Amino acid sequence: MPAPTPPAPARTRAVTRTAVGIVGGGPAGLMLAHLLSLSGIDSVVVEVRSRTEIEQTHRAGILEQDSVRLLTETGVSDRVLREGFRHEGIELAFGGASHRIDFEALVGATAQLYPQTDVFTDLADARERDGGDVRFGVADVAVHDLTGEPRITFTDAEGRAQEVCCQVLVGCDGSRSLCRRAVPEGERRQFFREYPFAWFGILCEAPPSAPELVYHHSDRGFALISQRTESLQRMYFQCDPADDPESFSDDRIWEELQSRVGANGHTLRQGPITSRSVLPFRSFVQEPVRHGNLLLAGDAAHTVPPTGAKGLNLALADVRVLAEELERALGRQDLGLLDAYGERALARVWKAQHFSYWMTTMLHRLPDASDFDVRRQEGELAGLVGSTAGSTYLAEGYTGWPTSRA
Amino acid sequence: MPAPTPPAPARTRAVTRTAVGIVGGGPAGLMLAHLLSLSGIDSVVVEVRSRTEIEQTHRAGILEQDSVRLLTETGVSDRVLREGFRHEGIELAFGGASHRIDFEALVGATAQLYPQTDVFTDLADARERDGGDVRFGVADVAVHDLTGEPRITFTDAEGRAQEVCCQVLVGCDGSRSLCRRAVPEGERRQFFREYPFAWFGILCEAPPSAPELVYHHSDRGFALISQRTESLQRMYFQCDPADDPESFSDDRIWEELQSRVGANGHTLRQGPITSRSVLPFRSFVQEPVRHGNLLLAGDAAHTVPPTGAKGLNLALADVRVLAEELERALGRQDLGLLDAYGERALARVWKAQHFSYWMTTMLHRLPDASDFDVRRQEGELAGLVGSTAGSTYLAEGYTGWPTSRA
Repeated sequence: MPAPTPPAPARTRAVTRTAVGIVGGGPAGLMLAHLLSLSGIDSVVVEVRSRTEIEQTHRAGILEQDSVRLLTETGVSDRVLREGFRHEGIELAFGGASHRIDFEALVGATAQLYPQTDVFTDLADARERDGGDVRFGVADVAVHDLTGEPRITFTDAEGRAQEVCCQVLVGCDGSRSLCRRAVPEGERRQFFREYPFAWFGILCEAPPSAPELVYHHSDRGFALISQRTESLQRMYFQCDPADDPESFSDDRIWEELQSRVGANGHTLRQGPITSRSVLPFRSFVQEPVRHGNLLLAGDAAHTVPPTGAKGLNLALADVRVLAEELERALGRQDLGLLDAYGERALARVWKAQHFSYWMTTMLHRLPDASDFDVRRQEGELAGLVGSTAGSTYLAEGYTGWPTSRA
Repeated sequence: MPAPTPPAPARTRAVTRTAVGIVGGGPAGLMLAHLLSLSGIDSVVVEVRSRTEIEQTHRAGILEQDSVRLLTETGVSDRVLREGFRHEGIELAFGGASHRIDFEALVGATAQLYPQTDVFTDLADARERDGGDVRFGVADVAVHDLTGEPRITFTDAEGRAQEVCCQVLVGCDGSRSLCRRAVPEGERRQFFREYPFAWFGILCEAPPSAPELVYHHSDRGFALISQRTESLQRMYFQCDPADDPESFSDDRIWEELQSRVGANGHTLRQGPITSRSVLPFRSFVQEPVRHGNLLLAGDAAHTVPPTGAKGLNLALADVRVLAEELERALGRQDLGLLDAYGERALARVWKAQHFSYWMTTMLHRLPDASDFDVRRQEGELAGLVGSTAGSTYLAEGYTGWPTSRA
């Protein structure tokens, strides 16, 4: 008689207890963990991608003044100043000419060209240096008991079952956030807008075509001249969201770019195209950003179209406010205080949503635009660059409004 | 044998020769005639409506600072200062509260509440006082030989056939301009936008509900509190362009108004409604504004939606520039110089078109607006009133950009 099959061994989960469990190890999650550690608050970060995978995904970046300060003043990075490029303005090009918006002169602030990929690396290094608990490359992430004592379960990079029990769980898990979806449908509102165009982005090996970003409005549509390093440049042009980047020959890409910037008197310095992609345009906000003891931050709570470069900056502004409110709430052991996070963060989110929408609709050619709309855009641009107040209003938004203090 | 029928007598046309023939005797046409007479240039104005008919058509009016100056400094009116109301700002009401934009503090300028009907009366009086040649109540107006020596033919109020021969013909004949239509199709471009809403406007006998104009953004749509005199008020609310003003009961009108302003903490003082109408929303520009020796000015060349009150101001700015250019061109007997008119006037026209579109789309509820759009509008309004630069940019547009000098 065969021996009976032994019962399957109970799968043991290694349990970690911490104050703040963070799902998502991009810039928002890592910056939050860093800020909390400065206040003596423990956290655990879990991230499905490996560190290498994230570092190999190219993400551009224009940092607001306060984002740069956050990185430097909290000891994350001085590389942002050494290797980043300080931009004291941008150019708006339309109707055959270029007009500079001088941020430094108008609002005494600048923007910093420094890729999001490098922000990530600086933050990951800082967590490692400080002994932070960050689990990259995990799988099967799930979140539980969000209105009680929240838990994150996952399988770690070595295949072990893990559980993180925390007082507060923060979803920093980006635009496809699982944390966001964990909020019951009846308890959230989603605000959404899709745009009928996208950006075709390239990286090319060439010297810079302009010292600062140049936003081009043209009859053929939008184009953006931007930079990466002295020998690597980033350029974009408005395309159809359904366009397949691989279906464009290099010649066609350069023709699209040169014709748009040429209409305003610019010429691009060409070079081998080393990367190409189509970036979708979406505006999204989920409210509230708190559900029980779950809080949402960064792209998990909101998405902006890339015009105006608010995505990363908004994520950093979110976690700066969130870290302050977590410190207060955990310090007093009164999680009710966390409602203040949404009140403070969402005011900035909607301002940034409008700013991104404004830059987008002012500069792009809408597929259903009448001739009236195109001329009105030119009237708007002419009025804006001709007005110190108008230019200042734009500069305030571009370089970032001050983060409201608690 | 009966006597042969005598030939019909040749209809005799009384011919008047003048430098500038003006079709349209509203504020634009009369102001142009007035400015030309100050420079010693003769003109004849022809207008199909009688003076009484125009004076009995109620037209509201908010005058920019330069419009007031034009009336006072050229001797047309000091009544605009005595009987008009100086408004040092407006209020923007949204999200439950009101926020003042202080024009005087921001740009050192004000707006003047003074009805267009009164501007017309002042101008008609001035022309009469100065012995200007203005023919009201004419019929059968036609324009001829626009690229040569232009002529206007018409039947005068006494039924006599008349002809005005001029060096330059100016169409100031409003939004249904016959002069505009006299430009051959292949030689003009028309820019057009229609809006999917209108304003329901009333006059009511009541004391003012607010000292200045209050622009209301609400979930139910736009509303505007404005004034006329101490005992007569003008109010508007967003409606469907197909709405029949007579189909609304007084109770329904007050309910629509009170619910929208009530959402932002205002209450209207009610009284008998003495007039009601639906105002369409259109944006329109025809270019060029010169065809041979025909020039277009005011509503004949462009229409704006009423938000922001740019229509009359733009017409006055047009004729101010046009009078300068006519003086130069006629003085040197070089009509080629008249091209400068379009270059100068259209820059302002497109700025004003954008301003009107901006005020309109920021404050109204668009029928196809998503929840995102409504929240974004609130984000825009909050950002605007919270920014001195943004508020200044709006104040510049509202009180009027300086008219560029030749």
